[in-house]
Amino acid sequence: MTGLFLTLEGGDGSGKSTQMGALTAWLEQQGRTVVQSREPGGTDLGLELREIVLHRRGFIAPRAEALLYAADRAHHIATVVRPALERGDVVIQDRYLDSSVAYQGAGRVLKAREVRDLSLWATEGLLPDLTVLLDLDPAVGRERLTESRTRYDRLEAEEADFHERVRAAYLALAEAEPERFLVLNATRPVEELQQSIRDRVSHLLA
Amino acid sequence: MTGLFLTLEGGDGSGKSTQMGALTAWLEQQGRTVVQSREPGGTDLGLELREIVLHRRGFIAPRAEALLYAADRAHHIATVVRPALERGDVVIQDRYLDSSVAYQGAGRVLKAREVRDLSLWATEGLLPDLTVLLDLDPAVGRERLTESRTRYDRLEAEEADFHERVRAAYLALAEAEPERFLVLNATRPVEELQQSIRDRVSHLLA
Repeated sequence: MTGLFLTLEGGDGSGKSTQMGALTAWLEQQGRTVVQSREPGGTDLGLELREIVLHRRGFIAPRAEALLYAADRAHHIATVVRPALERGDVVIQDRYLDSSVAYQGAGRVLKAREVRDLSLWATEGLLPDLTVLLDLDPAVGRERLTESRTRYDRLEAEEADFHERVRAAYLALAEAEPERFLVLNATRPVEELQQSIRDRVSHLLA
Repeated sequence: MTGLFLTLEGGDGSGKSTQMGALTAWLEQQGRTVVQSREPGGTDLGLELREIVLHRRGFIAPRAEALLYAADRAHHIATVVRPALERGDVVIQDRYLDSSVAYQGAGRVLKAREVRDLSLWATEGLLPDLTVLLDLDPAVGRERLTESRTRYDRLEAEEADFHERVRAAYLALAEAEPERFLVLNATRPVEELQQSIRDRVSHLLA
């Protein structure tokens, strides 16, 4: 058995957590060891940085913000993800470098290419074996969120056109790397989405 | 009047704070507005990051550490240093990118070139008008420190050969950019050192 690195991407409310839970259960039934993780905040250090980038009051310079996400990622990949992959585990991660490129790029200050290069430097070039993009109209995602949340973080609180740009950026990333991405319409029933993901993961495990 | 960006570099105990204080007083006597600053920790955000990089217990992945220093720098330059230079102030800063290159490079995990590139990305390429390197045998610096300190941070606590590599890295940086650097033997009397610095700053102001 060799390790497998799977990432889930998509706007808030697109169902990443639900799909991660179902996929983990299915993989564990097959005897695989699964490490669930997330960015930002997948380590103790990362939790401190997550608090800063998502909940700190006041302005953070765009390059500083990008560097904080990259620092979280560098530590997380070096201390959690790479060791797990070397043990042969399956790592399922909520958000990875495509989030940085889509969200920071949508902020219009930094170029997608430089955000991507920064992430690749941080992780010594680690790309996922599969990235599932749960594509959803941001207005629908927001409705789903509103039902479950009482507090929004810095990114959730951005305006609607920002989230439209994020969605467009995600779709452009998927188009550029069709082998790595599985793009799913997140309004489909949960069970159907899960089946599509399992089909693709089965291929990778075979 | 145009702004001027001066940085002080050198090992701990080399007298950077003393020279900064004397230079500030002299410049203010001439009617210049001086902004004293330092990295890491020149902003509120930076103070939180300084606490993490210098005093946090436990391992921090080398790339994560480099990215945290770069995040501190990006925010500090964007929100403090550039606005001051645009107002025409003199900024005197305790440590800047040469510290990152010398210390992180001396850790032997990262290459000097990549640390420098990261800093230049963080700051959109801002280099000092003058960098004063207070060169000192690390053993002498340590003796001076021991007299005044009861607590050492992560870098101060490194072994002697690490600090020897830092010194060598600093001298190599100065040799590569002789126009930007003023290298002074930090064992010379404080007043003599200050006079050498003032002579060079006078040239820049003229």
